[in-house]
Amino acid sequence: MSNADTTAYARLKDRFARIATIHEASAMLGWDASAMMPPGGGAARGEQLAVLAGVAHGMLVAPEVAEDLAAARAEGAWDEANLALMRRAHLRATALPPALVEATARANSACEKVWREARPRADFAAVRPWLEEVVSLQRETAAALGAATGLSPYDALMDTYQPGIGVADVEPIFAAYEAFLADALPRAEAIQASRTVPVEPQGPFPVEVQRALGRRLSERAGLDYEHARLDESAHPFCGGTPTDVRITTRYTADSFGQAMLGILHETGHALYERGLPEAYARQPVGEAAGMAAHESQSLIIEMQASRSDAFLSWLGPELHAAFGGDPAAYSGANLGRLWRKVERGFIRVEADEITYPAHVILRFRLERALIGGELRVAELPGAWAEGMQRLLGITPPDDRRGCMQDIHWHDGAFGYFPSYTLGAMAAAQLMQAARAALPGLDEALGQGDFAPLVNWLRVSVHNRGSLLGFQDLMKAATGRPLDPSAFMEHLGARYLS
Amino acid sequence: MSNADTTAYARLKDRFARIATIHEASAMLGWDASAMMPPGGGAARGEQLAVLAGVAHGMLVAPEVAEDLAAARAEGAWDEANLALMRRAHLRATALPPALVEATARANSACEKVWREARPRADFAAVRPWLEEVVSLQRETAAALGAATGLSPYDALMDTYQPGIGVADVEPIFAAYEAFLADALPRAEAIQASRTVPVEPQGPFPVEVQRALGRRLSERAGLDYEHARLDESAHPFCGGTPTDVRITTRYTADSFGQAMLGILHETGHALYERGLPEAYARQPVGEAAGMAAHESQSLIIEMQASRSDAFLSWLGPELHAAFGGDPAAYSGANLGRLWRKVERGFIRVEADEITYPAHVILRFRLERALIGGELRVAELPGAWAEGMQRLLGITPPDDRRGCMQDIHWHDGAFGYFPSYTLGAMAAAQLMQAARAALPGLDEALGQGDFAPLVNWLRVSVHNRGSLLGFQDLMKAATGRPLDPSAFMEHLGARYLS
Repeated sequence: MSNADTTAYARLKDRFARIATIHEASAMLGWDASAMMPPGGGAARGEQLAVLAGVAHGMLVAPEVAEDLAAARAEGAWDEANLALMRRAHLRATALPPALVEATARANSACEKVWREARPRADFAAVRPWLEEVVSLQRETAAALGAATGLSPYDALMDTYQPGIGVADVEPIFAAYEAFLADALPRAEAIQASRTVPVEPQGPFPVEVQRALGRRLSERAGLDYEHARLDESAHPFCGGTPTDVRITTRYTADSFGQAMLGILHETGHALYERGLPEAYARQPVGEAAGMAAHESQSLIIEMQASRSDAFLSWLGPELHAAFGGDPAAYSGANLGRLWRKVERGFIRVEADEITYPAHVILRFRLERALIGGELRVAELPGAWAEGMQRLLGITPPDDRRGCMQDIHWHDGAFGYFPSYTLGAMAAAQLMQAARAALPGLDEALGQGDFAPLVNWLRVSVHNRGSLLGFQDLMKAATGRPLDPSAFMEHLGARYLS
Repeated sequence: MSNADTTAYARLKDRFARIATIHEASAMLGWDASAMMPPGGGAARGEQLAVLAGVAHGMLVAPEVAEDLAAARAEGAWDEANLALMRRAHLRATALPPALVEATARANSACEKVWREARPRADFAAVRPWLEEVVSLQRETAAALGAATGLSPYDALMDTYQPGIGVADVEPIFAAYEAFLADALPRAEAIQASRTVPVEPQGPFPVEVQRALGRRLSERAGLDYEHARLDESAHPFCGGTPTDVRITTRYTADSFGQAMLGILHETGHALYERGLPEAYARQPVGEAAGMAAHESQSLIIEMQASRSDAFLSWLGPELHAAFGGDPAAYSGANLGRLWRKVERGFIRVEADEITYPAHVILRFRLERALIGGELRVAELPGAWAEGMQRLLGITPPDDRRGCMQDIHWHDGAFGYFPSYTLGAMAAAQLMQAARAALPGLDEALGQGDFAPLVNWLRVSVHNRGSLLGFQDLMKAATGRPLDPSAFMEHLGARYLS
């Protein structure tokens, strides 16, 4: 290896660290905008984020980066992977003409604004021309990214959110799930109908009590508040940086389930960030392995561990001690009936574990057709209704509960939706592997102890950063690439027996 | 004017707006670090701020800036002032070799760290070598800035914090005040000794009640929470940006005075930021006119308005309604005796209005001698004790209550201290002018109404940004440059009659 090569790589590491540091600043400002900022700060915040994005982009596409990337050589698996990810980031950043990037940012922002107004009225006609512009620019983006990377246009968009995963991975998985669903959903409904009706805990559930309990639960799940905060925002999320993660939830005194499970969900994301490899902090290889990988970490905590019989049997008495009332409402079995209720509904974010993938499959097919040009925006409401009917046997009464329900498309995020279900499936597969590796796992959860699971995740997933692609990560952690069988087995055990 | 000239100025405006936007991001991150950040986020935050500072500095000293500044011409008072301030910023930024800037940042940070450890032990010997390094680098900085600007070295440092103000302005003012103090302080003490002893309100004073009341007081003073937040931090401050100001205070259930008056102080700063000229937002001429000007705005709200007889007569019943207890403790007269108590003390931040300037005069003389090379760091404790004895007739028992009490020097801030007293004097002079212009001013304050005062400040000070230098701003607002007479008259009326 020549000296120039290692020098070039060292320069790149330094540059990518500075770029990542600017992204950290943006992440903190984004958290603040959602959790703290007074409304009047919005315009200035938009400018701040735009200027930082411009600075970071400029540092990534500067001419000397191409020269250094051409010359650089790295040694060892981590640095080789890091250099490859640098090349990927540079390739994708330079693939898009600045005018397209700007037009996209403007169109997304304008469409999202119109959508916020039009959604409550279910007024698809109002948002349609704006969404058409968004889709048109996404098609250009997809084509440009595809040309640069050798992927198909829609795969190039998917690759933005979960590198290394495309239609060829997703389509057979979704087809298998659709077949499973047609059989499993009516059976789960029948079993549920035959069971005891769950007892609703009676409120009010003071927000202060929920806040303290939520923090305690996240601490039990392994979140260290020397490096974290828990706050409130309209839309719960996990933000911040690996040494300073910021999770949010929202509370209502009428119920506690959404807030507590939401906190556990965001804690899963936060633990992933906290567990990323410190030695490669602020390097591409030190980042999380993609959105499906990230969602697997929130869902393994929220869906797999926190809704397990073992954990609910521990959680029930804790909740009863906090809120009082009828102890029967807080038995583990009752909480299971409450929080694992199956119901065909129109709204993705309210969906249960079994029907959620149907919402994702519908969106995957529609957005793929939109990007491919086989579906026009004007045809979206009809195609949506048809798809919901086929997948879940229900038809939304209006577009508010149909194709206007999600922010994603209206904000220009195409290719993101599959990550939710890939994450749910990966979570089940990881949980299966963790159970096999750790015979005492459920016993620990039955004592409110997440440590065995989280320690296993830290080694198997978190500490690996982006060293491995998604499928190789799944292989390393579970012995095989992602397949839907563990998820179906999980659903079978939870809902069909 | 040639087209090239206006184009150059337009390019500069765009560049300075982007630089200011990065400074806004840093300001929000600085606020977060003090008010929100978990301790474990500190290291990453330091990196984020350093990278943003480096980016902003790089944008300011880029070669094309010098070219554009040489070519640029601006039309009209505001743009001419703006261009002059751009030249000033560029001149100061390019005057310092990068190696000196880096060494200074490192030395300041290291010294501050040692000081935090050594101060509780009053261990000057421990901090001395670090402070010597800080002073040595400050002397280099002062020399370089002085050479570039034509100012004396210490004037060049003062100019950093309050542009346009130097030793020639400050020395006669401070000499006059020292003479005033020698006569006024014993008289004020004698009058105070002859008066009724104030009644201490009895706590506890619930923090929740203080928080709500503090917010209400700041709203009465004109702060609009569509564009502001009130939070808590160890050291109260006003941060954020003009459309999103963030003020902090700290509460203790044992007392409420410090928190309430602290909130009113920071509200004065916040109102200044909120009132800066929107048309020149993110331009040098749209910024506040310096630290003395800023302090005048916090002190006119806290010291002039909020501790006036008129306002205290309104505030007393409000406090009593909030906290209950003996009504006699909440009469306006009693609050005046409590909050305008004169006492010779060792600690600047606890000092009253009369003795505070003595603390500043001492520091001004010592730091000037340190920068001038007439005083060595090793001689500081002795010179401090001597100065305190001459100015206030007291000698600190140790260096913790002497030359180690302030962060400023240990963090490399030389030339800042005079701003506090210049601000107090400017506040009195502005209040005198406001009273002359607004005959109903005290009547309004007697109804808890700050609007006449704040509206006058908005037009006379806030909306002017940095259009005028400090002395011209004082002339425009009060008819004459800063002089200490209004402050002495104010003290005379409040403490000597």
